[in-house]
Amino acid sequence: MKAISGGVTAAHGFSAAGVHCGIRKNKTKKDLALILSDVQAAAACVYTKNLVKGAPIYVTKAHVADGYARAVLCNSGNANTCNADGVEVAEKMCAMVAAQSELGLTVEDCIIASTGVIGQPLPLEPIAAGVPELAKALCAGDEGSNAAAEAIMTTDTVKKEIAFEFTVGGKTCRIGGIAKGSGMIHPNMATMLVFVTSDVAIAPALLQAALSADIKDSFNMVSVDGDTSTNDMVSVLCNGMAGNETITDAESADYKAFCEALAAVTTYLCRMIAADGEGATKLLQCEVTGAADKDTARVVAKSVICSSLVKAAMFGADANWGRILCAIGYSGADVDITKIDVSFASAAGTIPVCKDGAGIEFSEEFAKQILLEKEIRMLVSLNSGDAEAIAWGCDLTYDYVKINGDYRT
Amino acid sequence: MKAISGGVTAAHGFSAAGVHCGIRKNKTKKDLALILSDVQAAAACVYTKNLVKGAPIYVTKAHVADGYARAVLCNSGNANTCNADGVEVAEKMCAMVAAQSELGLTVEDCIIASTGVIGQPLPLEPIAAGVPELAKALCAGDEGSNAAAEAIMTTDTVKKEIAFEFTVGGKTCRIGGIAKGSGMIHPNMATMLVFVTSDVAIAPALLQAALSADIKDSFNMVSVDGDTSTNDMVSVLCNGMAGNETITDAESADYKAFCEALAAVTTYLCRMIAADGEGATKLLQCEVTGAADKDTARVVAKSVICSSLVKAAMFGADANWGRILCAIGYSGADVDITKIDVSFASAAGTIPVCKDGAGIEFSEEFAKQILLEKEIRMLVSLNSGDAEAIAWGCDLTYDYVKINGDYRT
Repeated sequence: MKAISGGVTAAHGFSAAGVHCGIRKNKTKKDLALILSDVQAAAACVYTKNLVKGAPIYVTKAHVADGYARAVLCNSGNANTCNADGVEVAEKMCAMVAAQSELGLTVEDCIIASTGVIGQPLPLEPIAAGVPELAKALCAGDEGSNAAAEAIMTTDTVKKEIAFEFTVGGKTCRIGGIAKGSGMIHPNMATMLVFVTSDVAIAPALLQAALSADIKDSFNMVSVDGDTSTNDMVSVLCNGMAGNETITDAESADYKAFCEALAAVTTYLCRMIAADGEGATKLLQCEVTGAADKDTARVVAKSVICSSLVKAAMFGADANWGRILCAIGYSGADVDITKIDVSFASAAGTIPVCKDGAGIEFSEEFAKQILLEKEIRMLVSLNSGDAEAIAWGCDLTYDYVKINGDYRT
Repeated sequence: MKAISGGVTAAHGFSAAGVHCGIRKNKTKKDLALILSDVQAAAACVYTKNLVKGAPIYVTKAHVADGYARAVLCNSGNANTCNADGVEVAEKMCAMVAAQSELGLTVEDCIIASTGVIGQPLPLEPIAAGVPELAKALCAGDEGSNAAAEAIMTTDTVKKEIAFEFTVGGKTCRIGGIAKGSGMIHPNMATMLVFVTSDVAIAPALLQAALSADIKDSFNMVSVDGDTSTNDMVSVLCNGMAGNETITDAESADYKAFCEALAAVTTYLCRMIAADGEGATKLLQCEVTGAADKDTARVVAKSVICSSLVKAAMFGADANWGRILCAIGYSGADVDITKIDVSFASAAGTIPVCKDGAGIEFSEEFAKQILLEKEIRMLVSLNSGDAEAIAWGCDLTYDYVKINGDYRT
């Protein structure tokens, strides 16, 4: 497997575009994106578990119920959530894509997504103007992926794109994706918005199984602020244009190769989402080892990454490991506290700070040096088994408060 | 029932003191408190559910196992948690109190509590010097309660004291308490540290039942930062000096009168703890009505109060009600989103912002005016039953980040 350029358009037969249509007032900020597969593609999605769901979630669920889709339309600046006419608006947006006859697709071929403020009606006029523009601008190169990645950003400060090349049954395949997500990030079944495309040939049911398994160790292990969004969605489209024999066996080497490639994309995007958490100055990674089982490892890692006190300590480069123990203790996981070891690590080195659940002497100076780096690893050994998990988050900063104290105005 | 002065020494037969003994470097900050009942008192405690528990929790549990106690010793500046010698140190602290022969109590009569940094050994020398000073300084008046309330403060900015007079079986009784708590506040079974005293006569088992029931609607409904502390504890001592016939019947009017008085103390202290949350500029109160059952009401209220995004919006006086709906949606409660109404209220007025789960038009200007007040009520009607609950929290501010980004240094 090797990283390649092209993002969401790296796979054969995919093009994308992003334009400013007017949902946002700032004319320099793109706010509408389209991703298209030249041919019908196997489609799998996972959605937020929040009971309050954006209208696009309902419409997308219906459209991918048959296991296939061809296009993704996504706007930023308005979540189309808690609006009385939300579903109608989302359906009409899909119809606008289908109305571009040169694309040759139906309303049901379209996945729809929205992100932004909750509870404000989404006007259709700018979208009606933007969709034909998008259809014209579709581009299979880097440019297309870049524009789409930019158009789905909200409080994000960087575009999030990645692509890899991998081999299935002797055929070279490509998989790539774009993501947005910076605040209201505490995915439960999916993260904010992630669109992945591949030219691998795979049966829809198997694609869904691969995605549902993947998110347990990828997006569901990310938290920026503990708030599970109403509009979270990850979608994967696989159009088969790589020409491999369609993957239909969950025990096959081909399926395994695809799952690895999918994980490479999702893990990369997870790290980008966490590192670009609202106001973040640091990427935090909690690596739990020696757990009795996988669930325990996940619960412990996630609890540490979610703790406001741990996050604030990391912002201050303060090796306050007691807060990590505290977060493990209230996680709900059944662990033996007296066996826990904790170290901090970064590009500057590694320093053990807690052994068998109690503090050990360490150089505060060296700890500070380690914690002043941009990527911090919190290493937690439970010493009770072989299971492991990794969770990603970011520090809690003044800017998180600033961004969210006045988001709408 | 009427509010009276005296705090934790308002009840007959109780005295208290607070001194600076040297656990903290700042000599103007008291760091050791003692509360004493002249006679044996029925004792009930509830503790953190964090698996990582401060050593004092284990020692206190053993000492009140018989249902009685006479004294509370509490230090601030060091949590005595995650220390290899923690239990031994906590036992020795109780022994130091028992060694003051003029107090006439045993080691097992002593409740012990500590609050401060986790994982740093607690030195006994300053405590050995402080305890005799405390014994000499014990005072049954306001002064004693004030000094004790001050000595247990950490990042608290105000002392937290309250007392009420109530009547049981024709006898006037008194109940009062002190509390500390500002950060690492997300109690699960109890809050940081709360010491309540009363001169009512009540059987220990009934006292424990009253306390265990009370915290479900008081301390367990408070959150400052979502972090459940390792040292949370609420203790109640009732010494019977009011002379009422001992309360032994959970169905009696006397028991009900005591429970009401207890709730008056605990609710008051909850509001004080939330309002003094680390960095807080506002007290937030989420009032849920119309729930199908009590648990649903509690879960919804707590989820709203815990949301970082809701908290940041309130800091910015931004009527971003979509975040309230979002927090209800991921709370795990089984609610019908399409029936939810939301209003904001404060001393400046009330404004409905969401009806039947969707936005309604409202004056942003008036909403801003309401949200600029010091106490904000978020009114959530689920319109699905008669159950209600209230939760307390505070806004998320720059100062929370500042306080916790560099707590130890």
